[in-house]
Amino acid sequence: MDYELTRKDRRVIYDGKILTLYEDLMQLPGGREERWDFVHHKHGGGACTVPVLEDGRILLVKQYRPMVDRETLELPAGAREDPSEDGSITAARELREETGRSAGVMTFLARIDSMPAWCDETTDIYLAEELSEPEEQLLDDAEEIRTLAFTLEELLLRIFRGEIRDGKTVAGILAYAALRRGIHHQLCHHRRGEET
Amino acid sequence: MDYELTRKDRRVIYDGKILTLYEDLMQLPGGREERWDFVHHKHGGGACTVPVLEDGRILLVKQYRPMVDRETLELPAGAREDPSEDGSITAARELREETGRSAGVMTFLARIDSMPAWCDETTDIYLAEELSEPEEQLLDDAEEIRTLAFTLEELLLRIFRGEIRDGKTVAGILAYAALRRGIHHQLCHHRRGEET
Repeated sequence: MDYELTRKDRRVIYDGKILTLYEDLMQLPGGREERWDFVHHKHGGGACTVPVLEDGRILLVKQYRPMVDRETLELPAGAREDPSEDGSITAARELREETGRSAGVMTFLARIDSMPAWCDETTDIYLAEELSEPEEQLLDDAEEIRTLAFTLEELLLRIFRGEIRDGKTVAGILAYAALRRGIHHQLCHHRRGEET
Repeated sequence: MDYELTRKDRRVIYDGKILTLYEDLMQLPGGREERWDFVHHKHGGGACTVPVLEDGRILLVKQYRPMVDRETLELPAGAREDPSEDGSITAARELREETGRSAGVMTFLARIDSMPAWCDETTDIYLAEELSEPEEQLLDDAEEIRTLAFTLEELLLRIFRGEIRDGKTVAGILAYAALRRGIHHQLCHHRRGEET
């Protein structure tokens, strides 16, 4: 190609509460110039947990999301208090606030970019195990959240039915399933080995 | 609670090329009113495929994403041509344009909301199998895309290392892994049955 995709100019359209909207003048690989909308998310990304109870069930939070006008089932999640905050700190705080529980062990599962084509928001996903007994939720007055527990099999069914849709939640549950089945997968190979 | 989370007023801040930005006046469950930023994504959502070759490798597309200033590995994906377009049509078109291949079989895997807290963008994810031999890519002059093939195991490693981060791509690869391992899981149970 003669050109690379390059930003030639940027103007701030709106500097909002949680995001800054830019209109960028981009030079396309073909050479033509085009204006693109870009969203910078101010909180420096968020974090969430896949909280697994002793009986293997997974805790999700149910809440009304006005933008999609639906109640959603999501992993407990929230924004960093400042961009330098480690995702595991954010994730642990949101777990405590939304479910009343603390985790004895946190394990990094994945980091996702929500929509890298036009936004820079990221979410770190952690596995949360050895959970404490629940204490009272610590919700702000914007939050009305119920905590529900589901088996992994039930959650996989709901994902493949398109019922659980939140991106970080689908990614986190499936990442946990891949780890779990990965272990099982190895056990199976070991068992086959014994058969020969 | 005395109140529910309710939108009391909405004003359009910016009506852009791919998105509309709103500032909504929300009444919080606690009763207080607060202004929230909301992004409506105009293309009515997108769709992507997990394209699986005969040898089991998965095709991803590599491209530079200015918003995150990185080259990303993503599932072939794109926007609906109009909001009424079925996601499987969108997914098939983008697979053809970005990889040069067509799928003999498409299977719905999941639908994800990128970030339901503040945006209404959705992406439908399909498994694409029985792929044709590659023909020429059909890229517009904004696109500079390379196609690369990886084994599922390699992709899982890259996800758990935080290297593959695009939300729809992490969700789609892990959804395919859950299906694959699910079948394997049943085979293992069957094998155990034979042992008894």
